[in-house]
Order: sequence, then C-alpha cells, then structure tokens
Amino acid sequence: MERALGTNPRTVVGFGDDVSALRLPDGKLVVLKTDMLVGSTDIPPGMTMTQAARKAVVANVSDLAAKGVRPLAGLVALGLPRNLTKVDIQSIAKGLSRAAREYGFPIVGGDTNESKDLTISIALVALTSKQNLVLRSDAKVGDTVAVTGQFGSASAGLKALLKERLPPETLAPEISQAVYKPRAELNLGLALANSGALSASIDSSDGLAWSLHELSRASNVGIVVFHVPVSRAAREFARLHHYNANDLALYGGEEYHLVVTVKPNRFNSAKRAVRGRLTEIGVVTKKSEGVRVKAMEGYSKIPMRGWEHFKLQT
Amino acid sequence: MERALGTNPRTVVGFGDDVSALRLPDGKLVVLKTDMLVGSTDIPPGMTMTQAARKAVVANVSDLAAKGVRPLAGLVALGLPRNLTKVDIQSIAKGLSRAAREYGFPIVGGDTNESKDLTISIALVALTSKQNLVLRSDAKVGDTVAVTGQFGSASAGLKALLKERLPPETLAPEISQAVYKPRAELNLGLALANSGALSASIDSSDGLAWSLHELSRASNVGIVVFHVPVSRAAREFARLHHYNANDLALYGGEEYHLVVTVKPNRFNSAKRAVRGRLTEIGVVTKKSEGVRVKAMEGYSKIPMRGWEHFKLQT
Repeated sequence: MERALGTNPRTVVGFGDDVSALRLPDGKLVVLKTDMLVGSTDIPPGMTMTQAARKAVVANVSDLAAKGVRPLAGLVALGLPRNLTKVDIQSIAKGLSRAAREYGFPIVGGDTNESKDLTISIALVALTSKQNLVLRSDAKVGDTVAVTGQFGSASAGLKALLKERLPPETLAPEISQAVYKPRAELNLGLALANSGALSASIDSSDGLAWSLHELSRASNVGIVVFHVPVSRAAREFARLHHYNANDLALYGGEEYHLVVTVKPNRFNSAKRAVRGRLTEIGVVTKKSEGVRVKAMEGYSKIPMRGWEHFKLQT
Repeated sequence: MERALGTNPRTVVGFGDDVSALRLPDGKLVVLKTDMLVGSTDIPPGMTMTQAARKAVVANVSDLAAKGVRPLAGLVALGLPRNLTKVDIQSIAKGLSRAAREYGFPIVGGDTNESKDLTISIALVALTSKQNLVLRSDAKVGDTVAVTGQFGSASAGLKALLKERLPPETLAPEISQAVYKPRAELNLGLALANSGALSASIDSSDGLAWSLHELSRASNVGIVVFHVPVSRAAREFARLHHYNANDLALYGGEEYHLVVTVKPNRFNSAKRAVRGRLTEIGVVTKKSEGVRVKAMEGYSKIPMRGWEHFKLQT
C-alpha cells in the first residue's frame, strides 16, 4: 500500500513513522496524523461511547506526543450505525470534545455518515521545525532505551474482559483506568523532545515489543532489554490468573506510553525534563544482535508480536 | 455535534463551510478537509474498488476546488472488511494513488483497520491566504449565480442502476462517466478564485438544490434560478424513463460541479478565466424571497432536498 501511494520532494516523513511531515516553503514542517477507531474491533466490553470517542483522539495525540509535537487542530469523520440513539451520538460528541480540550486543540471540521460499523476517524495537523521532530529512525548504538511508564495494565484488563470474562466493575482501578481512560503523554513527549536528549521515539500503542522492533527496524539497530517495566497491577493480575507478567507488558498494546532512545550521557537530563517519569530499560546495540531481553539464563529473543484487535484475540 | 466540538480564536472557518481553516502565526491559513466514503451507502452497483477509492479522494478535492485551494497533501484511513481480497486492496491503493496523481498531491500517511463496512476516510491539508479563500457566506444581493457544468447525469445514472435496475453497461457514456469516474473541478475552482470575481462558492456534491440552499443559509440571502442547467444525457434519460428532467438536475447529488456567485459586472471576466466553462443560472436576492425557480407559470419554491445515500434511496 505505502509504495503504491508514492511520495514527493516536499515529504520529509512519509509512511513508516508515527506521523507524516511535509516541508513548507518557509522551512517549517506540517505534521499530519490519522488513526481510525472501529467499533467492532477497538471497543472493549464495558466501554462507553464517550470513552470510545475520547480514546480515538488519544490514539492520535499519542503519536504526536512521541514526536514531540503539539496538535494544532483536528478533524473527525464518523461512520454511525443506524441503531445508535441520539444519546449515543451526543456521547460521541462529548468524548471528542473532552479529549480535544484535554490536549488543548480545537476540532474544526468533520463529516458524518451512515455505516454498518461504528467508525471514528481522526486526523490531526500540527506545525513544527525539523530539529524538534523526534523520529523512529535515529537511534544509535550505545544509546539508552527508556520508557515513560509501566506496562501491562491495559493488556491485563483486556485479558480479564475478553478471556476471563470478568465484568468491568471487578477490574482494579489502575487496570480499569488503563482500558477505559487511557492518557496520551503529550506533556512528557513535548518535554522530552525539548530536552534535546532523545535520539528516537515511538509510542507503545501496538505493545512494547512491537515498539522496540519498530525502533530497531527504522534505525537499523538492535536492542537489549535488561528490565521489563511491568506495572504493579499487571503483576498482581498475572499472579492471580496464571499469566506471565513480562508477556503482559511486552505483548500488550492499547497502552500509550513513550518508548525512547536517549543519547549517551543524557539520560539524567532527559529524566529531569519529565520530573523522574523515565525508566531505563535497555541499551541500543548492533543490528545483528536483534531485539532481545536479558533473562537469568542469558538472553532470549523478543518476537515481533504485538497488539491484535479484540475480534482476532478472542 | 458542531456546537459540542467548539472552536478557538485561531479558527477562521469552522463547521458549516466546505473546508475548515486555521490562522498560522505568519498570517497564512491552514485549510483542512475530511470526507469519508462508506461501502454500504456510497458505492453504486457496478463500481470497481479502484473507482470507489478514486471517488473518495475526488469528493475531498472537490470541496477544496470550491474554495479555490490546491491540496498540499492527503492522509487515508481505511476500514477493510475481512472478505476483501489482496487484489481488492491493491485496487483501492491504485484508485487512491491515481486520484492523488490526477490532482497533484502526495498521500503521505495512513492507517489500516479491519471493519465490517468498507470505509475510506480521506483528510486533506492545504495552505492559502485569507483573500484567496472563497467562502459560502459572502454572496450579496444582485450577484449572479452560476455553475461550471450541466447537472443530472449522475442522478440519472443512479436512478437507472437503483430504481430501474438497468445493468451498468447499458448506461450512456456521459452517465457512466458521471457515476463511475466523477471529476473534481480543481483547475476551474483555482481559476475562478484567482479571477477575484467570485463572492461565494460551494461544490454540488449534495445536489444543486442543496448547494443553493447552503449559499442562501450561509450568506443570509435568497436565490432565484432562471435556468436549470440540465445535461443532455439527463434530459434524454428523463424522457425515456418518465422522470422530470429539472428534478434530476436539482435534487441529484454525487456530481462535483461548482455553484458560485459572481460579483456585479464580473461575470464575463469570471467566464473568461475558465474559458467559457461558466453558465449563468440565476441571481442573488433578499433572504425573504427564499430559494425559488422561475417557471412558465411564475415562481416556485425549491425545497431543500438533496442527495440521500443509496441505501436510503432504494
């Protein structure tokens, strides 16, 4: 698909990064992002329309956050099944509006359609200059790999709802928050980009393992993870329901933390920029070493498995 | 929906026009547009995937054409039903690519999802300055109302396919072209805006009557139509199948001509700018006179009926 759509000389970033970017005549960059939420595959059991609409925006903002770019404005195209009530549609508007306010930009236009599947397609536009844009592709051997949060809560929540068939109200608060009210880490992303300490960055919406593989592919490097950052709630859930906690953290998804690489000797300044919200998890190595995790018995490969949508997962 | 989503001081054009626009710090405007094509309601019988994908782009470009703005870049978010083949998906990519080449901009990013209904959501971005942007809202009493094409061919084609159940291959070439290969009149829109002769403009994707009512609403004026511009093919189809030809032209849709108002004494210069591709159809009047058509027996109101999607129409 990407190849067929081509590119042109103004395109600074095309397919294959969290956002796209075009150079304007004055040298500034227009940053563009689109991400679509689909009812049948992206809305977990128990999620309200307001939460779903908000999440559609969060997923888009998270990609801008990873690049260190603040959204300027958004568009929304809706596909609405005929059986939605007026209240449902008002709830969708409320969720969109709430998310836009939360991240400080207006939704300035849109399109409404009838569709068999609920569809919330968001497009964001932003402006930046090249030196502020943190890509996936500039990680270097020796850089530190770090994350802005602990992983596995969303993945535990989705497993609870879909596999264990637990009712939403039994979820621990941290897990419930991760599933129904995820946050895009826009301020963290802006502060990290602004610190000048990052060499590369990606969000973790398709899972931590997927993000590490994407950094590896785009930067042509390997990664060794020394410490898998598992959330307390995911660890507890894994113990109760006999899951592997590291797997919950690595192969989850729908979790919007940032996965970054930090230039040599800049980890402390990056960490200060986000008031401590940065955890070292590994190091960038040569491409030939692949993407691995250090375990007690040596190193093991991290397969490129990631987030699969609900319908496929159940 | 529009009210709930709010606005902000940078928003120069929000909901309610063909596009949205935001002011940048340097005074330039970022123009944004999104329009979604949905398989179950927007794809007529006999249309190929390539044609459908191309049409999704055309619908968006047409709105920029009406504002006199050239697209800078596009994004595409796809919802793909599981039963699509690899060839179908390649055809969609081909249609997108073909349309983007046709109108001279790159598609720089996108998102692919599984969905129950084929969904092609396009977002376009452009840059312009305020004086070049022709809105719906500046028509004045005494301005000339004009159009860039003849109407009714698409509407005749859809009636043939949906009501008369004629097979696609029996359609007259002009009708077939109107249904399967519509064109956005980008060069005409740019030339008209550039002539400085227009006071207002809209595209006719929801039907001529709808467009006239939108100009009336947005500019707070009335419109009298002296001449309904019916295409030869629509006239012939109406005669054969006992439809009212004027109704085909007025209440059709999915036809991408421009409906403009021209400042006093500027009609000839506007017409020269598009090498004659402009037909006078009426005049702008006071709001209280409503939207009317002059018929032999006097004036009759044009109801605000417009394009309804296929599923609703059959």
